[in-house]
Amino acid sequence: MAKPKVVLAYSGGLDTSISVKWIQEKYGYDVIALGLDVGEGKDLEAIRQKALDVGAIKAIMVDAKEMLANDYLMPALKANALYEGKYPLSSALSRPLISKLLVDVAEQEGAVAVAHGCTGKGNDQVRFEVSIQALNPDLEVIAPVREWGMTRDEQIKYAEEKGIPIPVNLENPFSIDANIWGRACEAGVLEDPWMEAPEAAYAWTNPIEKTPDTPDTIEIEFDQGIPVALDGQPMDLVPLIEKLNDLGGMHGVGRIDHTENRLVGIKSREVYENPAAMILINAHKELEFITLTREVSQYKVNVEQQMSKMIYDGLWYSPLQPALQAFVEETQQVVTGTVKVKLFKGHYNVVGKKSPVSLYNEELSTYSKDDAFDHDAAVGFIKLWGLPTKVNADVHKAKEIKAKKVPVSVNE
Amino acid sequence: MAKPKVVLAYSGGLDTSISVKWIQEKYGYDVIALGLDVGEGKDLEAIRQKALDVGAIKAIMVDAKEMLANDYLMPALKANALYEGKYPLSSALSRPLISKLLVDVAEQEGAVAVAHGCTGKGNDQVRFEVSIQALNPDLEVIAPVREWGMTRDEQIKYAEEKGIPIPVNLENPFSIDANIWGRACEAGVLEDPWMEAPEAAYAWTNPIEKTPDTPDTIEIEFDQGIPVALDGQPMDLVPLIEKLNDLGGMHGVGRIDHTENRLVGIKSREVYENPAAMILINAHKELEFITLTREVSQYKVNVEQQMSKMIYDGLWYSPLQPALQAFVEETQQVVTGTVKVKLFKGHYNVVGKKSPVSLYNEELSTYSKDDAFDHDAAVGFIKLWGLPTKVNADVHKAKEIKAKKVPVSVNE
Amino acid sequence: MAKPKVVLAYSGGLDTSISVKWIQEKYGYDVIALGLDVGEGKDLEAIRQKALDVGAIKAIMVDAKEMLANDYLMPALKANALYEGKYPLSSALSRPLISKLLVDVAEQEGAVAVAHGCTGKGNDQVRFEVSIQALNPDLEVIAPVREWGMTRDEQIKYAEEKGIPIPVNLENPFSIDANIWGRACEAGVLEDPWMEAPEAAYAWTNPIEKTPDTPDTIEIEFDQGIPVALDGQPMDLVPLIEKLNDLGGMHGVGRIDHTENRLVGIKSREVYENPAAMILINAHKELEFITLTREVSQYKVNVEQQMSKMIYDGLWYSPLQPALQAFVEETQQVVTGTVKVKLFKGHYNVVGKKSPVSLYNEELSTYSKDDAFDHDAAVGFIKLWGLPTKVNADVHKAKEIKAKKVPVSVNE
Amino acid sequence: MAKPKVVLAYSGGLDTSISVKWIQEKYGYDVIALGLDVGEGKDLEAIRQKALDVGAIKAIMVDAKEMLANDYLMPALKANALYEGKYPLSSALSRPLISKLLVDVAEQEGAVAVAHGCTGKGNDQVRFEVSIQALNPDLEVIAPVREWGMTRDEQIKYAEEKGIPIPVNLENPFSIDANIWGRACEAGVLEDPWMEAPEAAYAWTNPIEKTPDTPDTIEIEFDQGIPVALDGQPMDLVPLIEKLNDLGGMHGVGRIDHTENRLVGIKSREVYENPAAMILINAHKELEFITLTREVSQYKVNVEQQMSKMIYDGLWYSPLQPALQAFVEETQQVVTGTVKVKLFKGHYNVVGKKSPVSLYNEELSTYSKDDAFDHDAAVGFIKLWGLPTKVNADVHKAKEIKAKKVPVSVNE
Repeated sequence: MAKPKVVLAYSGGLDTSISVKWIQEKYGYDVIALGLDVGEGKDLEAIRQKALDVGAIKAIMVDAKEMLANDYLMPALKANALYEGKYPLSSALSRPLISKLLVDVAEQEGAVAVAHGCTGKGNDQVRFEVSIQALNPDLEVIAPVREWGMTRDEQIKYAEEKGIPIPVNLENPFSIDANIWGRACEAGVLEDPWMEAPEAAYAWTNPIEKTPDTPDTIEIEFDQGIPVALDGQPMDLVPLIEKLNDLGGMHGVGRIDHTENRLVGIKSREVYENPAAMILINAHKELEFITLTREVSQYKVNVEQQMSKMIYDGLWYSPLQPALQAFVEETQQVVTGTVKVKLFKGHYNVVGKKSPVSLYNEELSTYSKDDAFDHDAAVGFIKLWGLPTKVNADVHKAKEIKAKKVPVSVNE
Repeated sequence: MAKPKVVLAYSGGLDTSISVKWIQEKYGYDVIALGLDVGEGKDLEAIRQKALDVGAIKAIMVDAKEMLANDYLMPALKANALYEGKYPLSSALSRPLISKLLVDVAEQEGAVAVAHGCTGKGNDQVRFEVSIQALNPDLEVIAPVREWGMTRDEQIKYAEEKGIPIPVNLENPFSIDANIWGRACEAGVLEDPWMEAPEAAYAWTNPIEKTPDTPDTIEIEFDQGIPVALDGQPMDLVPLIEKLNDLGGMHGVGRIDHTENRLVGIKSREVYENPAAMILINAHKELEFITLTREVSQYKVNVEQQMSKMIYDGLWYSPLQPALQAFVEETQQVVTGTVKVKLFKGHYNVVGKKSPVSLYNEELSTYSKDDAFDHDAAVGFIKLWGLPTKVNADVHKAKEIKAKKVPVSVNE
Repeated sequence: MAKPKVVLAYSGGLDTSISVKWIQEKYGYDVIALGLDVGEGKDLEAIRQKALDVGAIKAIMVDAKEMLANDYLMPALKANALYEGKYPLSSALSRPLISKLLVDVAEQEGAVAVAHGCTGKGNDQVRFEVSIQALNPDLEVIAPVREWGMTRDEQIKYAEEKGIPIPVNLENPFSIDANIWGRACEAGVLEDPWMEAPEAAYAWTNPIEKTPDTPDTIEIEFDQGIPVALDGQPMDLVPLIEKLNDLGGMHGVGRIDHTENRLVGIKSREVYENPAAMILINAHKELEFITLTREVSQYKVNVEQQMSKMIYDGLWYSPLQPALQAFVEETQQVVTGTVKVKLFKGHYNVVGKKSPVSLYNEELSTYSKDDAFDHDAAVGFIKLWGLPTKVNADVHKAKEIKAKKVPVSVNE
Repeated sequence: MAKPKVVLAYSGGLDTSISVKWIQEKYGYDVIALGLDVGEGKDLEAIRQKALDVGAIKAIMVDAKEMLANDYLMPALKANALYEGKYPLSSALSRPLISKLLVDVAEQEGAVAVAHGCTGKGNDQVRFEVSIQALNPDLEVIAPVREWGMTRDEQIKYAEEKGIPIPVNLENPFSIDANIWGRACEAGVLEDPWMEAPEAAYAWTNPIEKTPDTPDTIEIEFDQGIPVALDGQPMDLVPLIEKLNDLGGMHGVGRIDHTENRLVGIKSREVYENPAAMILINAHKELEFITLTREVSQYKVNVEQQMSKMIYDGLWYSPLQPALQAFVEETQQVVTGTVKVKLFKGHYNVVGKKSPVSLYNEELSTYSKDDAFDHDAAVGFIKLWGLPTKVNADVHKAKEIKAKKVPVSVNE
C-alpha cells in the first residue's frame, strides 16, 4: 500500500534537507519537496536535484514571483502596509502565498499533510499554520524543526549520519529571509539593541558612504494604485520591483532597523532592506495625498494599520482581510498619476507629483490674486467648529485652563 | 472717557503694523502690541519700538520659548505628534500659547478684545479663535487682515498714507513662520506640486550636497518621555532643542515637503524644516519600542493620531485634549533611557537604544542555546489564535479562497 | 425670455408654500415643486394641487419609498447604523435621496437652482447642501427659510398677504419629520432635558401601558444582510418595513429619547420612534454574531461608527462613504439566516437565531462529553498571550500594582 | 521539612473540593483555601468549615464586595464597559480581584503557588493566569480541573473514594457565576442558539409577565462618574448596587442573551442578568451625553471598547489598562448630576437628566424666539465642511454618482 504523502516547503538548506529524512522516519510519509522562487535568486534546478538527493520522492519547483507581486504585494502596497509604521512586511507577505502553494500541491498530489521549516518562536509558524488551516482545514501540518528540538550540533550529527550534505556557509551569523519585496536579517550580534547593526547584516544596499554622489530622479506612474511604468516605460510588476531594488540599493535606500513586537509575545530586533518596497509605498502615499479627500485619507490610515497587523499576525486568509481590501480597492480607483522620486544618499523623497484627478486646486490654495477661496466662509466655520469648546468654556468658566495663568511681565 | 483696549499679536511686519492703525480707525480701540519670541530669532527691542512708532499705546514683549517647550512641545513629543504622519505641528503648537498670552495680557490690561493677523483661508485663524474662545469666551476677537480684504498694493498704499514703514524684504516669495520646533514655508512657486521645492524655500538646513562627509553620533537621554541630556550632559529643553536644530540642520536633517489637508477644506503644499523635532520624535519613538508593551505601543498610535489632528485643527483647549494627554502621560512613566542617533546626509537614524526598564529580553529573543522561550507553547497558541479562521474555513469549505487555485506545474 | 427655473423640495406645509412665492419675488425664478412620499403617508395628489395653487409652474410627485429602502436604508442596516449608539438616522438617510432627486429633476428640467426648506441651525441644511454640491457642483442652492429670517407671526402675515392657505394644525407644539425608517420629534417642551417626553410627542408607538399582554414572536429571514422574508413569507422591503412599524408600534417598540451632538456644534434633545429600524438592526446584529468571525465583528464596529457619523454629518456622497460600504458589503456575503424576535412590552429581543453558515459550533462550545475543544492548547495560548504583560511585570517587579496591597485578614 | 504551600481559590463546590485533595496528592503541597464573597450570597463560615473538612491546612475567608465595587466596577462603569456592546463584564471584572487576593495571600503565607478551578476552554483561566503573572511572575499557577481531565462521573467516583461530600444540587443543568455586578449562566440547553433561554436560566430577574404594572421612577445622583445617592439619599456603593439589583430584578431589568466571541477562539452562548449594572451604565452614559463635549463623547467610545476588550481578554493588569483609565478619569471630572430612571416592564429608560455643568444649552437649541444661535454662521460652515467633497465632485465631474440616475417621472 502507498505511503501517505506530505508536501514540504523545501529551501535546499540544512533544516529542510534534514526534514525530508526526519519526516520519513518519524511519520513514515513520502515527502514531496516544493521549491519556490520568490525573488531571492535561487537556482531552482539545483534545489530540485538536492531535494531528490536527500530522499524526496518528487520535487516541484515554482517561479512564484508574479503571483507574489500581483496577489500579495499589490494589496499591501495599496494599503501602504507597514507593520508598526516601519516594516513593509516583506517576509510576512510571502507566507500566505507559500501556504497556498503547499495546499494546492497537496490537493493536486493527494497528500495528507504539509510541512514547513519554522521554529517555535517566530511569527512564521503562525502565518503558515493559520493560512493552511484556512485553505484546507483537513490537512495535517508538520513542523519538523519545532518538533525535533535538535541543537545545531545535533543537526549536523544527524545530517552526517543520514548522508545529508552540509552547506559550506552554515556558520552564517544571521538568519536571513528574502523575496522581491525585501530582505530580513535577524539574530547574532543584532540581539543587542544598543549595538549598531554591522555592515555584514546588509546585502542589498550600499552604506551611505559608498553611494553615488549624483542623484537619480525617476518617475513612477501609477494606475489605480498600481505602479505601471518607470520613466515613461510601461513595465510589468516583477521587473519594475527588481529594477527599483537595484537602483534603490545602489543609493542606499531602504535600510530598516526595527525592534518589533512579535505576535508570539516577545520583542525582536530585525534588520530589513526594502528598497523597492519603501520607494513604492512612499510614492504611492504621496500620490494619495493629492488624489484622496481628507476624510478618505485620514480614515484609511486606520484600515492600513489593521491590515498591516493582520498580515503580520498571520491572518491573511481570515475573513477580515478581504473586507479591509474591499475598502482599500474602492479608494484606489482615483490613485492614478505620476510621482517624481529622487534617489540620493539613502533618501527616496518625492519631489513632484501630478494626477489627472488631482484634488489639489491651485486656485483655491493660492495666496495670489487669483484666489477663489471664500474668506468670509471661515468666520461661520470657526464659529460652529469651535462651538462645543466655547459652550464648554462658558459652562466651566474656563477656570481650570486659566488656573495656571502666568503673569506676563517679561521684557515689558 | 478711556477708549476700549485691544491686545494685538504683533510681529513687526507690514500686516500687523497696518493693523495697529486700521483697528484704531475702524474700531476706535487703543492698541496694545504683544510681541513674542518663540525662537524665530527676533529682536524684541526693535519690535517694541516699532509697535510704539506705528501707534500702539503700549508694547509688551515676552520671551516665550520655555513656555512653548514645556507646556506645548513636550506633550506633543510624548505623543510623537505628526499630522498626517509627516508634519510635527511646529506652527500649530505655538498658536495655543500665543492665544493664552493674548488672553492673559488682555485680562491683565483690562482689554475688551484681542486681535491676530491671520487671513481667512489658513488654519491659524481657527486655532487662534477657538483657543481664545476657550480661554475667555467674553473677549471679542478681531482679525484685521481677514476683514479688510486689501490687496498687497492697497496695503502698501495704505501704509504710505499712514506713515507706516514698509519692510525692505517685502517681496519675499514665500510666507514663513518659525519657532524652535520648526520653520514653515508656503506659497509662491511651491503652489505647483509637480515642481521640486527650490533651495530658496529652505533656511535652516543644508542640502544633502553640502552636508559634512562625516557623521555625528549623539546620545540623547530621556527621562519619562522628556529629553534631559545630550551626550551625557544634562541640558534644559530650549538649548537642547536649539542645539539639535543647529546640528541637524548642518547634516541636512528635517526637510519635509507635504501637500496637506487643511481644516478649512483645501489641500495646501507646505515645506517644513524641523531638525530637532524630527530627531527627537524619532528617538523617542524608538525608545518607546523597547519600553512599552505591544498593547500600549499599538493602541497609542490611535491616541497620537487623534492628538495630532486636534492640535492641527485648533482644538488644543478642547476637553478632549487633556484626556488624550492623560493617556499619554500614563504611558510615559517608563519611557526612560538613552538613544544613540547618527546624523548623516539628512538621516537621523537610531543606531542604538537602551533603558533600565527595557522590555527587550535577549534571553527570550535569542536563537542561541540560552533560549528561554517555550517553543511548545506556540502550538497551543496557534491553535486558538487561528481558531476563528479555522471554524470559518470549516463552515465555508474554504470555497471562495480556493476558487482562484492555480494549477502548479511550472518548472516541474 | 424664459425665467431661470428652480426645483424646490415641496412638502405642502406653510414654510415651503411661502417659499414658492418668496423665491419668485426675491430671485425672479420659476418654481418647480418636487413632492416626495418617503413613507410619511402623504396625499401626493393634494400636495401637487397645492403647489400649483401657490404658484409653482410645475409640480412633480414621486413615490420614493423603494429608492429610500433599497439605496439608503439597506446600506445603513448592513452597517447597523446608529448615531452615537442610539439614533438609526431615519431623517438623515432621506436627505441624500431627496438631494439626488432634486438634482436629477433640476437637470431634467434645465433648472439653474434647487431649494430646500431648512433653517440655519439644524443638520439637514448641511446634508442637503453638501449632497447637492457633490452631485452637481454647478447648481445654485437656495435656502429660503434660512435666508428670510421671518418669525412665525411674520410668516403668517406674509402668507395672508400672498393668499397662501394657512394649515389648521399650525400650532403643532413639535417639529416633526418622518419616513418609513422612523419619525423624529423635537422642540417645544422637549427642550427641557429634565422633563419626561410627553405622550403627545409620540405617534407611531403605544405607551407600554397600552401594549398587548401577549407577545408576538416573528421570524425574520435575512439574505446577505437584507431582510427578505417575514414568518416564512417572502416580502419586498417597503411592505416588510411597514409591517414591522405597525407590529412594533403596537408593542411599544422603538421609542428613543436622545440628547445628541449636532454637527453644527450644539446639543439637541430629540424623540424618535423607529420600530422597524430598531427591530431590524437588532436582529441583523444578532445574526452577525453567529455568522461573522470575532475579528470581523469587532473591527466592523469601527466602520459602523464612522459610517453612522458620515451619514449624520451629511457626507453620504463623500468618497469615504462608498469605501466604507465596500467593507460592509464584503462582510455581508455570509449574513444569511433566520432570527426569531419576540415583540412584547416595548422589547424586541432576539430569542433564537440560526444560519446555514453559522460559526457557532456546538461541539466546540459544549461542556458536555462530546467536547471537541483542545483544552491543552489553552496552556500554550495563555503563555504567549500574557507574555508581554509578564515580561513587563518581570522588569518592573510588579511594584506599582502591588503598592496598594491590602492585608488579607478579614473573616479569617 | 515543611511542605510547600499553595493558595487555592475555594468555592465550596465539588470541583474545588476535589482540587484540595488532588493537589495534595499530585503536587505534595499543603493547601490553603481562600474563600471570597463577591456578592453571590455565600455562607463564608460554612465554606471555611468545608475547606478544612476536605483537607485544607488553613481557610481564609474574605468579604471582597467593597474592593470589587471600588477598584474594579467603578473604572468599568466610568468606561460604560460592555463587551461587544452587550455584556457588562460582571464575571470578567471579578477575576483580577480574585487573582490579586490569591497573590496577596500567597505572599503573606509564603506559598509557592496559587490554584484556580477553571477548565481549559473558558476565558477565566486566561484572566486568572495573566493576572497572577502580572502581579507576581514568580508564583507557580496550578489549574487542577484543566489538568486532571476527569469526566463528571470520574469526579464523583474520586470524591467518593476520598470522602469528599457531593453536593445535592450537582445536577444543575447550567454553569453559574455571580457577583454584585451580575449573574452569568451557560451550558446545557443554552447551547442551542435557536432555542429561547428557559426561565430556569434566570434567577435574579422576573419575566416581564410577572413584573409590577406600576413603574418605579428613581433618581440616581452621580459625582464625577460615581453613583453616590439614590432618590436623594447618599448611599455606599455596595448597598446601592444591591438595591438596584433588587429593584431592577423585580421589574425584569437586565436580562442579556449573548452569543459572544471568547478570547480562546470559540463562540459561546451566555445568559446574563445584570440589573444594577445595566441601570447604572445606561444612566451614566446619558449623563455623559449632557456633560461631555461632542469630541470627548465620540472619541471615548473607542477607549471604552478597547477597555472592555482588555477586561474581557484578561489584560486588566497589562500596562495599557491604567493608560486607558487615565483617559477615562480625566473625562469624568465633569460627569456630575442627576438622572431620573423609570423601571418598568424590563425597561430602565432615562426620562430626565440634569447637571450643574450641563452643556445642553436651551438658548442655543431652542426654536423659540429666544434663539441665540447664529444662523448665518451655518452658511460659511457648510461651505468649508463640504469643500473636500465639492472639490472631489468638481474633479470627478460627479460622474460615478450620477451614473445611476433614475428618470424622475413617477406620478408626474
